[in-house]
Amino acid sequence: KVYHLNIGQPDIKSPKEALDAIHSYPNDIIAYGESDGDLALRNAVVKYYNESVGVDVSVNDVLITTGGSEAILFSLMALCDPGDEVIVPEPYYTNVHSFARMANVTIVSVTSLLEDNFALPPLSMIEERITSKTRAIMLNSPNNPTGHIYSPKELETILRMCKEHDIFLIVDEVYREFCYDGLNFTSVLKYKDYSDRVICIDSVSKRFSMCGARVGVLISRNRNVIRETLKLSQARLCSPTVEQYASLAAFGAPADYIENVKREYEKRRDFIVKALAKIPGVKCARPNGAFYLIAQLPVEDAEDFAIFMLRDFNYKGETVMLAPAEGFYESKDLGRDQVRIAYVLNTEDLEKACNCLAEGLKAYGQRTL
Amino acid sequence: KVYHLNIGQPDIKSPKEALDAIHSYPNDIIAYGESDGDLALRNAVVKYYNESVGVDVSVNDVLITTGGSEAILFSLMALCDPGDEVIVPEPYYTNVHSFARMANVTIVSVTSLLEDNFALPPLSMIEERITSKTRAIMLNSPNNPTGHIYSPKELETILRMCKEHDIFLIVDEVYREFCYDGLNFTSVLKYKDYSDRVICIDSVSKRFSMCGARVGVLISRNRNVIRETLKLSQARLCSPTVEQYASLAAFGAPADYIENVKREYEKRRDFIVKALAKIPGVKCARPNGAFYLIAQLPVEDAEDFAIFMLRDFNYKGETVMLAPAEGFYESKDLGRDQVRIAYVLNTEDLEKACNCLAEGLKAYGQRTL
Repeated sequence: KVYHLNIGQPDIKSPKEALDAIHSYPNDIIAYGESDGDLALRNAVVKYYNESVGVDVSVNDVLITTGGSEAILFSLMALCDPGDEVIVPEPYYTNVHSFARMANVTIVSVTSLLEDNFALPPLSMIEERITSKTRAIMLNSPNNPTGHIYSPKELETILRMCKEHDIFLIVDEVYREFCYDGLNFTSVLKYKDYSDRVICIDSVSKRFSMCGARVGVLISRNRNVIRETLKLSQARLCSPTVEQYASLAAFGAPADYIENVKREYEKRRDFIVKALAKIPGVKCARPNGAFYLIAQLPVEDAEDFAIFMLRDFNYKGETVMLAPAEGFYESKDLGRDQVRIAYVLNTEDLEKACNCLAEGLKAYGQRTL
Repeated sequence: KVYHLNIGQPDIKSPKEALDAIHSYPNDIIAYGESDGDLALRNAVVKYYNESVGVDVSVNDVLITTGGSEAILFSLMALCDPGDEVIVPEPYYTNVHSFARMANVTIVSVTSLLEDNFALPPLSMIEERITSKTRAIMLNSPNNPTGHIYSPKELETILRMCKEHDIFLIVDEVYREFCYDGLNFTSVLKYKDYSDRVICIDSVSKRFSMCGARVGVLISRNRNVIRETLKLSQARLCSPTVEQYASLAAFGAPADYIENVKREYEKRRDFIVKALAKIPGVKCARPNGAFYLIAQLPVEDAEDFAIFMLRDFNYKGETVMLAPAEGFYESKDLGRDQVRIAYVLNTEDLEKACNCLAEGLKAYGQRTL
């Protein structure tokens, strides 16, 4: 048996409301929807933002995209010309690198450190990366892979800098619901003074455990951003019709659906942080949100170790699959001794996985080369 | 009442099998699927190609994409560097222009003419457009917007030219099932000698009247093309899970589903070609396939006429919405007196729409400016 700590596919059930909607899908033609998304769904998003996120957005600020992925890609394409630059703190969500390549945009990274709990590096370090080609800074909060949540102070500081340099701030907030230790999440949309330079990315994937639905959201109060993004949306015609219908229903799920999911993840976070701390030589920052963490292992090459675990090791017939963290860094040679762990398994499995990891590290240290 | 002749949204029901699959979707997590597509669906595609299209493809040649749209975009991105060129006969499917912009690819057009029934222009005309930056020729057969079906001879000629100049041939065959007058369609995949330079685009949208499912297919026997496209697929994670499941079921629909749909479109084609011929000054080529045609109207500016029809005209309380054809041409000033008509309405509605169009043209001619 292999415990998959390497991917962010939750084992949480999608809301009953969404599954019921699929089972009673009412139309006999699976027809094109609107390019900007199903209007009822966009209105549900608006209601959710007004009531649950506590920010005031209008339906004209909201576009439905084919997953948060497309929202990131479209943001880059809408804002940037080929050759333009976007600044991203590393380690960062690997696929952003691919989206940047598709949009012919260069990612410029600033390194955040495990020792600092992956907080934003000093403003001066970010500022010196800004060139005439910089179009935006992109954050992911709560962060995949670090679990860091950018504080209101960090956000405001960076927004002020964006204004000063006339660039955009894109914040991917798809893990917004998953903030622990009683932390309240502050959406970038809260800062209305900076509305003209903010794009917020959202998705049903993690919130409702509907990763396969490919229903995302792009929100901006900047009319030009919405207009340019809509052009891109029109080219690909629409996002999936049936799953937009299911997503609409998901937004109608009772509030305790998300509460329960969050509590479950917080329990897992508490469990895994404690379990990892007991393994000699393993270090990790305590993640405040999302369901990932970066762990530093007592190995030189985490990729080699990950391969060892899969190919040459088992403990009671079980092993663990890990994501080497090197791929989450833009800078060469960073993160070589780190892995990303997705704590999307129940605590019982997490316990077995951590035992397995501990035994694996022992065996890896003792192997004869 | 407005008759929509402007968009390709069929009024045909999706297969019962697909709707049943949705209504009995068995999973309680709408989870990520594989980036290259659901394996069962890919195998169904292979079976369909072997048995119905009569070409031999393997599951490794097949990637599921998020609609034919994404397959076109990924083809361009996989083949081209920024600044590269792709040759496309015009008039052509407008959104290709947007995909080319996203991929930073330049579309170079060769004009096909209504008088020639929109056949490929002489080879020499195409050949003189080839430069060192040309990476591919892109066809759509049966064609949207012209209804033209590229003949086996046209295909082979152009393949030979592609080989000679070491470029690719991309053929979008999403309307493959809809060939009239007893014509048999020849897929570009039939030409195995040219396998290394062929990409075939497909989709469930039109075949199964599932436009909103956003499930497309990219097929190539060129390993590099598949590998590069897979990288793009991995970035966006997967195509919609529930609708892939429905598409799998659609491939199991009885053969007469498509037969009936095809007969229905052929009836509509016959009807509208005859009806348009009766309107003074209207010319159109007889389309052999798909469900579009380009009609030349006795007006100077089809866009102005289309606006007139919507804003200033009705006949018995009804009017017609038309797509001006200018947008389907890359060359400036071509197609100004043409419109694209999608005959996706039943013949009764088509009759009323054509009457309306005839009366509209009369009124437009007699209006005082």
